[in-house]
Amino acid sequence: MVEWGAHGNTIRVISEYADDLAKKIGSENIYNFSIGNPSVDPPKEVNETIQRLITTLPPVKLHSYTPAPGLPEVREKMAAFVSESYGKHYDADDIFMTAGACGALAVVIHAINCPGDEVITFTPYFSEYRVFAESAGATLIEVPSRPEDLQPDMDALRKSVNEKTSSIVINSPNNPSGVVIKEEYVKAIAELLKEKSSEYGHPIYIIADEPYRDLIYDGIEVPFFPNYYPDTIYCYSFSKSMSIPGERVGLLAIAKDCTNRETVMHAIAGATRAFGYLNVSGLFQLVVTACLGKTSDNTQYIVNRDFIYNSLTELGYTCIRPDGAFYLFLKLPDGREDFCRRAMELGVMLVPGKDFSYPGFARLAYCVPLERLQGSIHVFKQLADEYGVSPKDNNL
Amino acid sequence: MVEWGAHGNTIRVISEYADDLAKKIGSENIYNFSIGNPSVDPPKEVNETIQRLITTLPPVKLHSYTPAPGLPEVREKMAAFVSESYGKHYDADDIFMTAGACGALAVVIHAINCPGDEVITFTPYFSEYRVFAESAGATLIEVPSRPEDLQPDMDALRKSVNEKTSSIVINSPNNPSGVVIKEEYVKAIAELLKEKSSEYGHPIYIIADEPYRDLIYDGIEVPFFPNYYPDTIYCYSFSKSMSIPGERVGLLAIAKDCTNRETVMHAIAGATRAFGYLNVSGLFQLVVTACLGKTSDNTQYIVNRDFIYNSLTELGYTCIRPDGAFYLFLKLPDGREDFCRRAMELGVMLVPGKDFSYPGFARLAYCVPLERLQGSIHVFKQLADEYGVSPKDNNL
Repeated sequence: MVEWGAHGNTIRVISEYADDLAKKIGSENIYNFSIGNPSVDPPKEVNETIQRLITTLPPVKLHSYTPAPGLPEVREKMAAFVSESYGKHYDADDIFMTAGACGALAVVIHAINCPGDEVITFTPYFSEYRVFAESAGATLIEVPSRPEDLQPDMDALRKSVNEKTSSIVINSPNNPSGVVIKEEYVKAIAELLKEKSSEYGHPIYIIADEPYRDLIYDGIEVPFFPNYYPDTIYCYSFSKSMSIPGERVGLLAIAKDCTNRETVMHAIAGATRAFGYLNVSGLFQLVVTACLGKTSDNTQYIVNRDFIYNSLTELGYTCIRPDGAFYLFLKLPDGREDFCRRAMELGVMLVPGKDFSYPGFARLAYCVPLERLQGSIHVFKQLADEYGVSPKDNNL
Repeated sequence: MVEWGAHGNTIRVISEYADDLAKKIGSENIYNFSIGNPSVDPPKEVNETIQRLITTLPPVKLHSYTPAPGLPEVREKMAAFVSESYGKHYDADDIFMTAGACGALAVVIHAINCPGDEVITFTPYFSEYRVFAESAGATLIEVPSRPEDLQPDMDALRKSVNEKTSSIVINSPNNPSGVVIKEEYVKAIAELLKEKSSEYGHPIYIIADEPYRDLIYDGIEVPFFPNYYPDTIYCYSFSKSMSIPGERVGLLAIAKDCTNRETVMHAIAGATRAFGYLNVSGLFQLVVTACLGKTSDNTQYIVNRDFIYNSLTELGYTCIRPDGAFYLFLKLPDGREDFCRRAMELGVMLVPGKDFSYPGFARLAYCVPLERLQGSIHVFKQLADEYGVSPKDNNL
C-alpha cells in the first residue's frame, strides 16, 4: 500500500513537472498531452437534469442513501438501455452501479480472485490493473499485443492461459492506443476461453473494460463481448461519454447466462462492503439515467485525431491510427526511450509506453483544444530533427 | 466476499420484511425505525450552491477528475475549518477527501494493517468494522462497553491490547447508542495507548469515526481525540450533518505530529488505488466546502429523542439516553431476544443489538417524522403487556 501510494502514477509526476516548467517558460509553452480528462462539454442535458432534480425532488430524498447496486428505477433503465443497444437481455438485477469503470474493475477483480489466481491482460494496458490484481492477492499476467496493429497475439494468449487463470481484462477501445479489437479476435478469444474453461473445469471470465465504447470514429463497431462469450462481466463508465469523470458514475452488468452468476454478484456486493463503498452519488445516478443515449459532442476529438495523426505521420513519425478514445500511440524514433524526457524538456508532455508495459511507444492524449495540438507541432519538428525522423521513415 | 455479499446486512433484510408486511397490513401500520437515513432536509445552501456551480462554472471543468485527495482549494478550506473548530493545526496536505466516513474507515484500516494485525473496537459497534478489518487480513477484537452507561470498560481494554494491536476504532457519538465517550475515558484511553505504544515499540493508532459529531444535544462537547492523542486518524462525514448521505462526501485528517504520518498517508493513497477509488464527486467537494459550518436543522432530532426516550421509559422500558446521533438503544425486557421479532410482526422495525455485537438491546433510529414515533407507541404498549414491562421496572 505504501509503495503504491508513495509512487503514485507517472501521469501525476509529469503533471507536477509541467507545472514547474510552466513557471520557467510560461504556461503557453507547455503542451500537456498526458491526461485523459475529457475536453468537450457534457451534453447540456447533464446540467439541465441537475437543475430539474434540485428544483423538483425533496432535497432529503434526492441526497439520501441508495441501495448499494443503485436505485431500482436506475438499474431498470440501465438494463433496458444496455439490452436495446447491444441485443442481449439484461434485467435490473444484472446491473450494479459503480464508481466509474475503475470502481467496477476493482470490485470485480477483488470479487472473483483468490490468492494465487492469475489475471491476464494484453499490453499495452492501464497500469491500475496491476494494483487491482495484486491487492486481491492475484498475479497480473501480461500478454503482448502485436506491435504492428496492437491486435492480440493469440499464440501468446494460448500459452498464458492455465488452470490458475481466473479472468482476462480486455480494454477496447484501448487506453493508451485507441485501438478496437477486431471481431475476428473477439471470436478467437471466446473460442479459446471456452475450450480452456472446459478443460480446467472452471469459468475463465472476460472482464470487458469499455469506458471508451461510445467514443468511436469512422463508423467502426465495437464488438460487445457478452454476445460472443456469456462469461463476460461488462464494465462501463459515463466518465468519457458524458464528460463527467469527476462524478464517478459507471456500471457493471452480468447477464443471466454467465456461469455462477449469482455467486459472482454476491462476491461483488461483498467486495463493495470491504471497500466501504455504499453507492454511486444518488444525484448522479438520476442524472445519467435521464441522459441515457446522450453523449458529449465527439466531433472535436475526431478533428483532433485527424490533425495530430496526419501531422505526425507527415513529419515521419510512426503512429497507431486510433479507432476511438482520445489517445494516440506514437512509436518512439529508433525505440529511444529518452524521447519522452526530451519532449518534456521542450514542453510537450507525453506518457511513456513503458507505463502501459509497452516500451518503445508514448501516449499522446488529444482531448485538448485543437490550438494546443497545432501549437505543439514546432516541438515535434525539432524532435524529428534531433532524433533523425524524416518522412521516409514512416513505414508501419 | 461471497459470504459478505450474500448475507448483506440485517438492516436490508428488515427493510424487505417491512415492505412485504406493508402489503399485508398497510404501510401506515409499519413503523420502520431500522434505517439511519437523515429525515431532516439538508441546509438550503446545499442546493443553492449546486445551482450556483452549474450556472457559473464551465461544465467540463466542474465535472472533471480531481486529485485523489481532493481539490487543493477544498483541502485547504477543510484544514482551516477543522483547525479552527478544534484548536489543533491541520494543513491542506493533512486532509484526504473520502467517500463518507465509511470510505475513510475502509481505506485507513486497509492502509495500516498487515495480515495478523489486530484492530480493537468497543461494543456495540457498526458491523462493517469487521468486514473492513477481515478484508485487510486483520482480526477485529471486541472490547465491551459497560452495560450501565456504554462507556469503555478500561480493564477489558488493557487486557486486549497486545503487540499485534495496530489500532482502535472509536465511534463517538456512537451508532447504535448515541452515547458520547466522556473526556475522562478519552484521557484514560490516550494514556493507556501511549504506554502500550512505547512498550511495543510501534504506534497504536486511534481511528476516530465521528460522522455524528455535529448531531449533539444538551450542549454536550465531543472530545476531539487528536487533541489528546496525536496518533489519531480523524474520520468525518458530511452525510449526517448536511443530510447528504447518498452523495458520499467525507474526509480523513492526520496532523503533522502523528507518528509515521507520511508513511500512513502514502499507504492511504495506496489503498485508494487498490479500491479503484479516484476522487469524491467534484461537484460535491465544492458544495460541502461552500457549506462548511452549516448543518441540517437538528431540532427535530432533539424533539424526537425527547419524545421516544420519555415515552418508552414511562412505559417501563430501559433505554440508554442518547447524547447525540439519532439512535436510541433500548434494553430488551428480561434480555429476551425474541422481542425484535415480535415487534416486527406488529409493524415496528428495530435492529437487534446482536447486529452490533451487543445482545440484549435493540436500536431504534428516530430520524423519522415525529408522527411515526407517536403512532408506534400503541405497539410498544402492547409489547410492554406481552413482555411484562411496567413502569416500576425502569431501574437503569
